[in-house]
Amino acid sequence: MHNQPFTFELPKQGGIPSEYDNHLVRRLSSMRGMYRDHAAYEALLSQGDPVHYEVYEIKRPEVAGELLQGVSVIHPGKVGNEYFMTKGHFHQVLETGEVYYCLSGQGMMVMETPEGDWSVQEFCPGQVLYVLPRWAHRSVNTSLTQDLVFFFAYPGNAGHNYGTIEQQGFRKLIVESNGAPLVVDNPHWKHR
Amino acid sequence: MHNQPFTFELPKQGGIPSEYDNHLVRRLSSMRGMYRDHAAYEALLSQGDPVHYEVYEIKRPEVAGELLQGVSVIHPGKVGNEYFMTKGHFHQVLETGEVYYCLSGQGMMVMETPEGDWSVQEFCPGQVLYVLPRWAHRSVNTSLTQDLVFFFAYPGNAGHNYGTIEQQGFRKLIVESNGAPLVVDNPHWKHR
Repeated sequence: MHNQPFTFELPKQGGIPSEYDNHLVRRLSSMRGMYRDHAAYEALLSQGDPVHYEVYEIKRPEVAGELLQGVSVIHPGKVGNEYFMTKGHFHQVLETGEVYYCLSGQGMMVMETPEGDWSVQEFCPGQVLYVLPRWAHRSVNTSLTQDLVFFFAYPGNAGHNYGTIEQQGFRKLIVESNGAPLVVDNPHWKHR
Repeated sequence: MHNQPFTFELPKQGGIPSEYDNHLVRRLSSMRGMYRDHAAYEALLSQGDPVHYEVYEIKRPEVAGELLQGVSVIHPGKVGNEYFMTKGHFHQVLETGEVYYCLSGQGMMVMETPEGDWSVQEFCPGQVLYVLPRWAHRSVNTSLTQDLVFFFAYPGNAGHNYGTIEQQGFRKLIVESNGAPLVVDNPHWKHR
């Protein structure tokens, strides 16, 4: 870990920053239960277990005042008519935000609060997206041919709560409809 | 101020983001005492009071967990042989970092800690620069023709302490020497 300020280069294409400490690889098999169409998921998985998304993380102390940073790459594809996406999470320290900068591809960020607000924001190269404190967030690759690549930064003490989303899902799903992304209600969403 | 997540576009050229709440304009006259060559500063100022650098800020609550964001534009030029630069500051809450992403131009970030460490990092388009907690930071435009433009994000509770730098300066200066930037000791630096 650096004890001096440092620079690194973000990729314009391809997704790999010039420096990182951890490379997290999430395969299709780690996404069981996250997509609406379970049969389509099992059928796809039976053909292999491809890399679904990847995160390149810069290691910093996990304390307030530090900023944890990295690059995420979400590969293109669909499970049934749902686009490939990240698991999504609340921050464990709910009152922490996150800033994103889109580098390539096209996507949507699906967000919601414990209080029942939801928001879906389109996300294109050159755009900053700010996820306010309290908002769970999941990124969705709405291209079927290109990786979605973005830089992120969030407070060092934020932590991740994946459990709530694993159990209740997000209120909204992003599906392909007539060749374009469409925001629909999640029929399986339930408050737990 | 937004109460939902939001996006905005960073400029590829020109420096103005698609959305901002405050536009801070720092003119040459606000930089008295910051450059080594006081006579050159007064001579330049006697010709007018041009805009020196500008900051476009997104407004967010100034509390831990939020991320304050914006775009800075430092115009090109020199005072004596020192390149145009920002005033520079420590964060009031010293244990808070800051992340930068360079959009256009070329520059250097001059940094130091209260303990006497210093660091100068070159800063080019496509690069992220992470200023660790405890490090004062000043950005310097090392081009004489182009604006230096970068995006920044830092914790909402960080605050700014300009006073320490106004009184003691930075340990290192960036001067033009044979047409290229050179890091030199600040002869006027003093610990207060």
